[in-house]
Amino acid sequence: MDIGMVGLGRMGGNMAERLHQAGHRVVCYDRDPDARDGASGRGLETADSLEHLAETLPAPRTVWVMVPSGNPTEGTIAALADVLERGDVVVDGGNSHYRDSQRRGADLLRHGIGLVDVGVSGGVWGLTEGYCIMAGGAPDQVAQVSPALRTLAATDHGYAHLGPLGAGHYAKMIHNGIEYGLMQAYAEGFEMLRAKGEFNLDVSQVSELWRHGSVIRSWLLDLTAQALSEDHNLADIQPWVEDSGEGRWTVEESVELAVPIPVISMALQARFRSRQYDAFGFKLLAAMRRQFGGHPVRRRL
Amino acid sequence: MDIGMVGLGRMGGNMAERLHQAGHRVVCYDRDPDARDGASGRGLETADSLEHLAETLPAPRTVWVMVPSGNPTEGTIAALADVLERGDVVVDGGNSHYRDSQRRGADLLRHGIGLVDVGVSGGVWGLTEGYCIMAGGAPDQVAQVSPALRTLAATDHGYAHLGPLGAGHYAKMIHNGIEYGLMQAYAEGFEMLRAKGEFNLDVSQVSELWRHGSVIRSWLLDLTAQALSEDHNLADIQPWVEDSGEGRWTVEESVELAVPIPVISMALQARFRSRQYDAFGFKLLAAMRRQFGGHPVRRRL
Repeated sequence: MDIGMVGLGRMGGNMAERLHQAGHRVVCYDRDPDARDGASGRGLETADSLEHLAETLPAPRTVWVMVPSGNPTEGTIAALADVLERGDVVVDGGNSHYRDSQRRGADLLRHGIGLVDVGVSGGVWGLTEGYCIMAGGAPDQVAQVSPALRTLAATDHGYAHLGPLGAGHYAKMIHNGIEYGLMQAYAEGFEMLRAKGEFNLDVSQVSELWRHGSVIRSWLLDLTAQALSEDHNLADIQPWVEDSGEGRWTVEESVELAVPIPVISMALQARFRSRQYDAFGFKLLAAMRRQFGGHPVRRRL
Repeated sequence: MDIGMVGLGRMGGNMAERLHQAGHRVVCYDRDPDARDGASGRGLETADSLEHLAETLPAPRTVWVMVPSGNPTEGTIAALADVLERGDVVVDGGNSHYRDSQRRGADLLRHGIGLVDVGVSGGVWGLTEGYCIMAGGAPDQVAQVSPALRTLAATDHGYAHLGPLGAGHYAKMIHNGIEYGLMQAYAEGFEMLRAKGEFNLDVSQVSELWRHGSVIRSWLLDLTAQALSEDHNLADIQPWVEDSGEGRWTVEESVELAVPIPVISMALQARFRSRQYDAFGFKLLAAMRRQFGGHPVRRRL
């Protein structure tokens, strides 16, 4: 099929490449001229502007937006509304909140333009391994995009149309919430292995061992073993963990649904904790202990 | 090699079978005559008593104990101390606490008998897929058992000697703690998918989809998808989750080490919660809300 790809970062660039390699005609655009030149250099067709992209693609057009969530996605979809036509379909493959996707879909619909929300998992490995593709949207609009969705999928079962607009990003949000919990569970376990001086365990050896036949084998464990094999002590890495929004959204959604998710919530809180080098709350706890029990506090050096 | 297998339950029976199929001579014993007859029927050699088992095996003997942890393991190892000889090695493949293994190893050592502690992961699938084998013990004793350990392992990398006596069961304990966290993370995510009536998501479809190319693909997810494909609603299953001890030990160990493991701890607490049908604490919360705010309570029907 013919498809436009807006955003040539790590995810969009790899996806354009995977689609191109499978024989689709991919017309790429990125607001950064260097990114466009890079794509050209790899043999991809590029457009100089969204207008040019729209001119280059045959109607009905399909334009995949793969830019950071939030304002970049908001602005890109709004700009596409001005250059696309009735019957065209925009795909948001980023990590948008499902409510934003529903709102944007309603806005585009006033122009007769469709929106398909696609949750994409697989990270930087997707070019070679393919992605897990969770799609939401109206059946005819999803059908228009489906040749590309099938190409991007890791296997024949790596793509599914899960429900109406928003369902793809909802499923991706929950996916990432689960991911937070899984990652934290492994992190806590390896922390305990390492803390047990008595056994002098080689955490790299254990991570590799658990990949073979254990109940907790997983792709995340494969990556963990890879990281530990490169540096058993992770000596160059600060214990600072970002969160990219979808964990927060999962916890917010759990509050709205009143569904208890203690582990996913704790995993998010643990990331917040990881970024506190000078936590006021802990200073206050130390101060309180001194107040009621005369317990010594550690003075700042 | 020649090896005795004591305990022919789901795990021990499969392990005896896997060893036998690989050409080892396995002499089986179970205190239940029916279990012994069943093993005989499958072509396995059996002994009628631990004494008979010891007589049948050539010295130095290797006897694998695969009975439930706690008293059955304690009693079996104590009984073996009476029938085995200097130079023999007992293997505890069950989920014993690493401290118990250290204590039992010291007891056996007074008889000149070795103990190798082996954490085994893989569940009922191990017969065909093999196991993840985490061994602890003295190098010469582990070496005596290693032909069997290599056969039981899922792959060439599915067996490792991790450290001194106790290291195998310690690693298995942490493995199971991680398992609690992973399982709870998936459970919470699927609960949220199902709770979102707006999208009418098919949780079975999502579980299958995530197996293909997603960051959260894992063996536990494979099993989850299998369970949901058999019954999308899990209609016949009570929301009651047992815990088998190793989750508790992991949390107790974290207290001893003062290593924070919020997610694994929460996963254990969630299992406790699953077993409360008439929680006094929640009744008290409802009563308190009525006291200070006049909020209505729900009367028992």
